Amino acid sequence: MFKATVIIRRRPSILDPQGVAVEKGAVLLGLTNVKETRIGKYIEFTVDADDKSTAEKEVNEYCSKLLANPIMEDYEFNLEKV
Amino acid sequence: MFKATVIIRRRPSILDPQGVAVEKGAVLLGLTNVKETRIGKYIEFTVDADDKSTAEKEVNEYCSKLLANPIMEDYEFNLEKV
Repeated sequence: MFKATVIIRRRPSILDPQGVAVEKGAVLLGLTNVKETRIGKYIEFTVDADDKSTAEKEVNEYCSKLLANPIMEDYEFNLEKV
Repeated sequence: MFKATVIIRRRPSILDPQGVAVEKGAVLLGLTNVKETRIGKYIEFTVDADDKSTAEKEVNEYCSKLLANPIMEDYEFNLEKV
């Protein structure tokens, strides 16, 4: 059994409207020093696999087919045996 | 100037309907070994501050007032001087 942690980010060249919106809110709160806010996803799950390479294959399939949008997002993941 | 990385997670006791929904999709794709999917946020931004304690104060305010929902989410952050 492995614990997977996935970070999904929009590619740097792609605008992040959610980040822009939150930053406008920050200015209204008086937080004028925060800049370049980008909002991504942090996903945790367990993978029931005997060895790491099987788990990696499963995580890659989960990320590329369901969790991340391959057109505009990049993902990276970490596997930890539990 | 600091680069801040924030991870926001729902508290373990709080149901994550988005994670449950994505996991149902995983089953339909044949990925039956992934379990307990929880979806959080991964936020990156820069803080224009001279010292770390000022930056920390700003990040805490940004997180608690705007980025995280203090009723059901916990946040943790990391600051790196750039």
